[in-house]
Amino acid sequence: MRSHPDDVSVVIAYYYEDFPAGEVVEFGDRLVTAEEIVAFAKDWDPQPFHVDAEAAKDSQIGELIASGWHTGCLLMRMMCDAFLLDSASEGAPGAEEIRWVKPVRPGDRLHARRTTVSARTSRSRPTLGILEFHYDLMNQNGETVLVMRGTSFMRRREAAP
Amino acid sequence: MRSHPDDVSVVIAYYYEDFPAGEVVEFGDRLVTAEEIVAFAKDWDPQPFHVDAEAAKDSQIGELIASGWHTGCLLMRMMCDAFLLDSASEGAPGAEEIRWVKPVRPGDRLHARRTTVSARTSRSRPTLGILEFHYDLMNQNGETVLVMRGTSFMRRREAAP
Repeated sequence: MRSHPDDVSVVIAYYYEDFPAGEVVEFGDRLVTAEEIVAFAKDWDPQPFHVDAEAAKDSQIGELIASGWHTGCLLMRMMCDAFLLDSASEGAPGAEEIRWVKPVRPGDRLHARRTTVSARTSRSRPTLGILEFHYDLMNQNGETVLVMRGTSFMRRREAAP
Repeated sequence: MRSHPDDVSVVIAYYYEDFPAGEVVEFGDRLVTAEEIVAFAKDWDPQPFHVDAEAAKDSQIGELIASGWHTGCLLMRMMCDAFLLDSASEGAPGAEEIRWVKPVRPGDRLHARRTTVSARTSRSRPTLGILEFHYDLMNQNGETVLVMRGTSFMRRREAAP
């Protein structure tokens, strides 16, 4: 169960050792609404096909679709709720790749899949693990809508106090 | 001047030809507040060091910092306001790289720099240009806080009606 964001006394459930190379885990379940698509895009990405269903008819896709930053944030929130908030995470330096493979439309129901591509311990800091993850964000038809590849730092269990 | 997001009759000011290879352009100016950092993170990335200044004292950085997705969204909004909303953009397939180079703290004032790494026309669709951009998001001390590299599609002016 994930910790409440305001709860400072976080119990760590997941360490580096809990993400073995080759592991595939599915998590998350979220319905995307037109209201949310428009609200997010008005703040961060107000291109016509993200904020206006009428204007979107003249766009390439021909209908309202979510901003790519919105779909990325949806994945991030699922990652937080599924494991990050309860983990010994020490952050991520970035993403090596983000691809918006298919549009996300109002009424889509999304979930995520995490694959551990590689796992190794840091040479310079042996208490730290370095994990390479591949994420797929998928819709209700099992189609991947977003792919993200990136490195995460996670403390080792042996190093726990 | 950028078009209003709700204005369907967008006048296109920028085409592929307006982003020549090698060009470097600076744009954007935005103050990041603690309130905005916390509000964004509560929705999308509620890790303790993004939502709670007290809890952040126990983190690696030792203080409240913005979610990497928040800084990415800040760049996206600057891109929209500076040129995307007035351009012949046909979207982007993704980002080849996003790196969070330095933390973004409350009170930081951010601006962006865009470099056109390469520009070529599409072989399969000669009316379309393919642009490779490198973005730096920078703080008030001229330090890069976020780097993004990605490809954008933009219609050519010659192809305009």
